[in-house]
Parts: sequence; C-alpha cells; structure tokens
Amino acid sequence: MSYPWNGLLSESDLEIYKVVGFGKPMGLGKRPALLVIDVQYRTSGSSSVPILDAMKEYRTACGEYAWSAIPRIAELIRAFRAKSLPVIYPIVAKKTSYDSGGLAAKMPAVLEVDDKGYEIVREIAPEPGELLLPKVHASAFAGTPLASYLVHLGVDSLVVTGCSTSGCVRATVVDASFLNYRVAVPYDAVYDRIQASHAINLFDMASKYADVCPAQDVIVGLETAN
Amino acid sequence: MSYPWNGLLSESDLEIYKVVGFGKPMGLGKRPALLVIDVQYRTSGSSSVPILDAMKEYRTACGEYAWSAIPRIAELIRAFRAKSLPVIYPIVAKKTSYDSGGLAAKMPAVLEVDDKGYEIVREIAPEPGELLLPKVHASAFAGTPLASYLVHLGVDSLVVTGCSTSGCVRATVVDASFLNYRVAVPYDAVYDRIQASHAINLFDMASKYADVCPAQDVIVGLETAN
Amino acid sequence: MSYPWNGLLSESDLEIYKVVGFGKPMGLGKRPALLVIDVQYRTSGSSSVPILDAMKEYRTACGEYAWSAIPRIAELIRAFRAKSLPVIYPIVAKKTSYDSGGLAAKMPAVLEVDDKGYEIVREIAPEPGELLLPKVHASAFAGTPLASYLVHLGVDSLVVTGCSTSGCVRATVVDASFLNYRVAVPYDAVYDRIQASHAINLFDMASKYADVCPAQDVIVGLETAN
Amino acid sequence: MSYPWNGLLSESDLEIYKVVGFGKPMGLGKRPALLVIDVQYRTSGSSSVPILDAMKEYRTACGEYAWSAIPRIAELIRAFRAKSLPVIYPIVAKKTSYDSGGLAAKMPAVLEVDDKGYEIVREIAPEPGELLLPKVHASAFAGTPLASYLVHLGVDSLVVTGCSTSGCVRATVVDASFLNYRVAVPYDAVYDRIQASHAINLFDMASKYADVCPAQDVIVGLETAN
Repeated sequence: MSYPWNGLLSESDLEIYKVVGFGKPMGLGKRPALLVIDVQYRTSGSSSVPILDAMKEYRTACGEYAWSAIPRIAELIRAFRAKSLPVIYPIVAKKTSYDSGGLAAKMPAVLEVDDKGYEIVREIAPEPGELLLPKVHASAFAGTPLASYLVHLGVDSLVVTGCSTSGCVRATVVDASFLNYRVAVPYDAVYDRIQASHAINLFDMASKYADVCPAQDVIVGLETAN
Repeated sequence: MSYPWNGLLSESDLEIYKVVGFGKPMGLGKRPALLVIDVQYRTSGSSSVPILDAMKEYRTACGEYAWSAIPRIAELIRAFRAKSLPVIYPIVAKKTSYDSGGLAAKMPAVLEVDDKGYEIVREIAPEPGELLLPKVHASAFAGTPLASYLVHLGVDSLVVTGCSTSGCVRATVVDASFLNYRVAVPYDAVYDRIQASHAINLFDMASKYADVCPAQDVIVGLETAN
Repeated sequence: MSYPWNGLLSESDLEIYKVVGFGKPMGLGKRPALLVIDVQYRTSGSSSVPILDAMKEYRTACGEYAWSAIPRIAELIRAFRAKSLPVIYPIVAKKTSYDSGGLAAKMPAVLEVDDKGYEIVREIAPEPGELLLPKVHASAFAGTPLASYLVHLGVDSLVVTGCSTSGCVRATVVDASFLNYRVAVPYDAVYDRIQASHAINLFDMASKYADVCPAQDVIVGLETAN
Repeated sequence: MSYPWNGLLSESDLEIYKVVGFGKPMGLGKRPALLVIDVQYRTSGSSSVPILDAMKEYRTACGEYAWSAIPRIAELIRAFRAKSLPVIYPIVAKKTSYDSGGLAAKMPAVLEVDDKGYEIVREIAPEPGELLLPKVHASAFAGTPLASYLVHLGVDSLVVTGCSTSGCVRATVVDASFLNYRVAVPYDAVYDRIQASHAINLFDMASKYADVCPAQDVIVGLETAN
C-alpha cells in the first residue's frame, strides 16, 4: 500500500519493522467520535497557495497542505453527522499573558496571530451544539475536560483529524491510546508544515498507537456499521 | 551542527523550518532531574550486537543502538549524583492480564518478555534510594505519580534519556512540556530501533518541546552551574 | 429515610438543603464496576473490636466499624461476580522513602504499618484475574491508570466501597464524578474512624456527586437489570 | 483553639482523633499562590442577607456566610499582591449544553444562573494580569491547566479560599495535596451553605490535607517571611 512514509525508511528500518511486528490493526469501536484539531486560519491560511506563500499571511500556516486535507475532513464530518456521532473541535485558544510557558519559548510564532487566525475554517465549521474545546498545549486532553466529555458521550473510539500531524494530532493520539480509546488517523485528513515529520509521525502512530488509513476507509466503515 | 536529522529533511522542509522560526533554545533550570526511561534488557539485549541479532533475544531489543547510548547515560547519571540531583527510573512494569489495551493490540511483542527482560541494565542501575517508577503506557507521567514526585523534589527541569526516542521518550517529553518543565534531550543518550523515527522525533522535540544537544553539553552545563 | 447524617444537620441546614434542591438521584448505568478501596488489615484490624482497641494493633484501624461493613462489601462482590461485572481493588501500596510528601506529613501513622497490615482482608479478597491497583494518595484515580482501565472495560458507572469514607472513598467519588461516571456509594459498605466525618461525607456525596443508599438497593438493582 | 468543628465531634470522635495523631501542621512554602475559588455573585448574592433570603436571588447563593468571608479574602489578596505573589481565580464557566454530566444531574440549580451570577464579586475582583481559570467541575485542577501554571510560576504551596468549603474548595485541596503542594485553608475565608458540611470538611482537611487556621495567621506568616 502507498503510505506517506514510503521512501523515508531505509531497507534496514523496514526489515526491523517487519521483525518486531508492530502496527497490528485495531479497528474502530461501535461509537466513535471525530476530533477536528486546530483547523483554524492560523494553520491553513486563507487559500490554497504554496506553504512558503501562506506563511507570509500566518507564519504557522500550511497553505496547500492544509487545503488538500480540508475536503477530506469535511467529508468525514458529513459522515459522522449523518450517523449522529459526535464531532468535537479542539482549538488553540487565543494566547494570554499567562501562556508564556514552554510552547511559547520554543515557538514564538504562536504568539503573533490575529483574531481571524483563531477562527475555524469555514469549510469545516461546527454546527450549533457541537463542542468547541479550547486548549493551551498540544494534546486535546492536556488541561481540558475532554476525557470527561468522552465518558459522558459513551464514546469508545476516536478518529483524529487536523493539524499538525507531528504536534497536536500526535500528542492527542498518544493520550487517547493511554486512555484505551481505539484510534484511527486518516492520513489524508491531517496536515503539517514539515513533510518528513508528517510522514514519520504517521508511521510512528501506525506502529504504536492508531490505525492509519485513507479517510475513505473510515467513511466506508461508518456506512457499513449497523 | 551535526544533528541526527540532517539528511532526512528536504531542502523545502529546511526552508520552511527556518521561516517558521521554531526550535528556540530554552536552557535548563536551576534544579533538573534525570529520567532514565526503559533501559531494561528488553530494550537493549544482553550485548552490543547488530539490532537484527539482538532481536533474536528480545524482539523489542535495539542492540548496538542501545549500547552506544548506555555509556552516555551512565556519564549523565554520575554527573547528577555528583550534584545530589534526582535520578528517576521510569520502567515498564511486567504486563498482567489487565494490560491488554491499546498498546498490546498494536505491539503484541511487548507481551512476550521474560523476567530478565524487565531488569534494569547493570551499567546504569539505580542506587538505593533512587526512584523506580513502574508505568503501563508510553509516557512516564501517564497513570503514575511522577508529577507529584517532581513537585515534592522541587524540580524545575528534566533531562530525558533512554528508550525509545519515538515512544516513551517522546511521550514523556510532550507531557513534561505541557507541565511547563524545561526539558533537554541528549541525542546520544536516547535510542530507538527505527533510525528514521529516532532522527525525526529528535527534530520534532527540538522544534517544539525541548533542547536537543549532546550529553556532554548537559554535563558541562551541570558542572558550571553554581 | 434513615440516613447516617440525620441528627448532624441543623433545622436551618435541612431547610437550606431543601431549597437548593441538590441530591437528585442519578441511577446506575448499564455496566457498573465495583471498587473495593483499602480494605486491608491496616484499616480494619484483625477482628471486630471497639475502634480504640483495634487502634492498638494498627493506629489507622477502624475495628468494629470496618467489620460491620465487610459483610456488605462481600455481598456486593458476590453480586458483581455473579453478573461477570468487574471488581477492582485500589489499595495502599507499601510506603517507600519516596512517599514522604503531603499525606505522610499530615498523618505520620500511615508510615508505621507492617506487612500484614497491607494484606487485603480475607473475607473480601480478590479472585485470580481481578485487578489490584496500588495507589499513593487518597483517590484511586490519582497517579494510577484507573481511568484507562475503566475505558478498556467499557464501564459506565461505579459502586464505591471501603475505607475511609472521608478520605479515599470521597476523593475517588469526586474524581469519578468529574470523569462523568455515574456513582453509587452504599452507606453500609463504607467505613471511617471519625463518625461525624463518615456521616457528613456521605451527605456531601449524596448532595453533589453520587447516589447514597443501602448495599441491598444496589444488589437488587443489579439482579433486576437485564 | 476555637475551630468551626468544635461541637460537631463526639467525645469518642475526639479521643480517636487524638490517638490516631492525624492533623500534623505542614507550614507554607517559600512561594505560595493564593486561589480565590468561585467568589461570583451566584455563590454570594448581591448583599449580606440571611442565606434563605439570598437564595431567592440565586438558589446557590450563601448570603451572609459569603459576605463574612469576603473581607478576609480581600485582605489575603492585598497581602499576596504586596509581596508580588500570584493570585489565581478559578471560576465556574457559564454552562453550555455540553455540561450536562454528573454535576448537573445531581444539582440542577447550577444550570439556572444569569450572566451577573457569573461575575466575580467586585470586592475581590482580579487586577489586570491575574489569571482567570474557567473550570467545569469542582476541583480547580480537574480539566484545567492549573498544574502547568503552578510549575511555570515556581509555586511550592497554595492558600485556598472561596466557595464552597465542601465542594470546590475541598476538591481543589485534595488534588493539591496529591500534587505535593503544601496547602493552607483559612477557615474564615471559605464559605458554604450547609454549616455542618462547612465545619466537618474543615476538620477533614485539617486532618489529612492542609493546615487550617485564621486568615490573619497566613497574613502574619507572609509579612514575616523574608
């Protein structure tokens, strides 16, 4: 199968991976929720232009990498809504003077975003009643009540989409795996600015924490579930 | 500088990384603790042989990749002990029938380890009074009292070593960053089986969560601190 | 109804409680788990004697208060096992030199317990395959993987028993309520040394976090569930 | 000494308490932070009237019990600001349709509060730059980034004030104790609607988790610290 990490792993890495036997598929549960993480104009930019152009609007924008994933995210949202399954939007809250800890020290660009940058991209925007979950760090679980909402919703698995693959998506997937939720990451519905990070983080998640597949596989799985 | 990820990032990735301006150095605090994660025979094997040979002893062993890092870890331990700074050993607890959740589903090899495999490698073993912290998932914070021990010890920063770079080391670093501990990862004192994952996870941590440097830089920093 | 707190609340307290309208019943879910907290000889003593006599064996023992509750806990365990529902034993782990934080500072008696004191009371002992969950603080969730086990077990509610009502039971109930688990506390299956604390903590839990009822009500509820 | 719980404990309870030897004093640390929890008009009402009158304005109001504590809280805030020590305001966030879990099921009155009810009481209001921390459950740590802010601020102890003694104050104190922060609860700077709960929860916290003393003792302690 054609995975984003093909080409980045050496022959030796591929052989080791085969022997260690990681990456067994888990399958989704009976009641998945969809997470749409940080799909705000600050991570996409206003339009599908090459990333270095998009970064002139917001230094943290991913441009065409984002705009390739957004239609896949929109399709997933439609499929979840059609089944009345929860759609949850963890988002970066506007920074305050208190948010000057570790992340801001490493990545000062996260502090220079205007109000439009925090808006959720129109094409995948929440409907009334869907949960917006402001967060201050990478994982959607860190310092938020997400774990308690998932119990309240009776969810047993998560489909994680959005940005960035190597940042908030991965941190959320690791925490979800700790909490024993089954996790799927549709590789064409997540995006990043650094393509090597995008690919290797998908490989790591596929090895240890989640099923990694095309968005279409998740949608077909939902439609054929009872 | 020669970093492990040189060669894996494309020209385009490097240009994007330069523009976004991530990876600013944080520096250590006044009272760091050293974490030595999962340096057990199940991740090293008994001797420094090529990884595919080591995997014949334990499928999860890293062989010579581990045995290159172990002397660096030992030097860091000596430096921390000389300053009476805390050394903490998060380790994988022997699996029970209850530990059949997400990790075991993805990585069945983690269930097939004998008693010796859980022993801490002799060259970096704890001294009496040093904390052993059994854990059930990747992060040393997940489902453990590590956060409370760090407050009790008055620690303000962490140096994270051990295995695997892309698994337990990275998950621990992300959680430590959320908790606003300053973090350093000595790249020659962590190890992994997949070398592309090792390199890109170091790059990701250097970008977002930690200072990544040679072990020697941490040791010199400790010695010159008051 | 005859609740343990009758007699401790003033007329004014009762009137306020009626007006504010707290304490609405929640009901259990479809798949409850039973928690048996800290029913070790250190909290019961070896036999049913008056508490001040029991405290000569272990300063933290509750004597006859414990031995009144233990048969109720045993009945609940039998009812859960008969329905193949999970029974989980959070217990106090033997203290190490690292466990010298806040709890030990307030309650030095917790440090002076011998090996037998940590044994689980024979009358309610776990069967093979039931989960023992060592903990270092009051709540069974604090610094343990309990939250992840509950997701793995597909549990939607908890019945909390054991000791002490005002300590580990209450702290566990508050955390379970945060995580949106429905909670029941059978008032004759929990015990404490200070009877005013026992009664008022049951009142607080009934007001804010849990259904408080006789053990028999929980058992009948289980038997009549499909 | 005259404690609020005098009179509620029986002779037998007092004797047991003496023998078990709980309640040892901890002392504050070198850098405490002040928490002012839920001092919003929904818990105080607009003026100092008997509680049953105050409950006509907000069913959750404490009336004169709140207005007795508020001057003590204001004095503590002045003392902390004078020493440039952190003052943090955990508050109840306005409920959304998602906040329909356990707390709302037990206490429907928490859902019927207007906008003024969520305002922080003017007499103890935050200054620019002081942290407002919205929360969804009782503890100020539950589902919030408070633990990470405390590390960032270099805090080693907490003084906890506000409302209600038996609810958010106690839950916060238990979590702070787990995290090994030293905790003081000034008994005249916390308030509750049910006076037996107020008193016994102060007793429980004094026994297990915190130093309980008059606000004046905390202020004198701050002024005499270097």
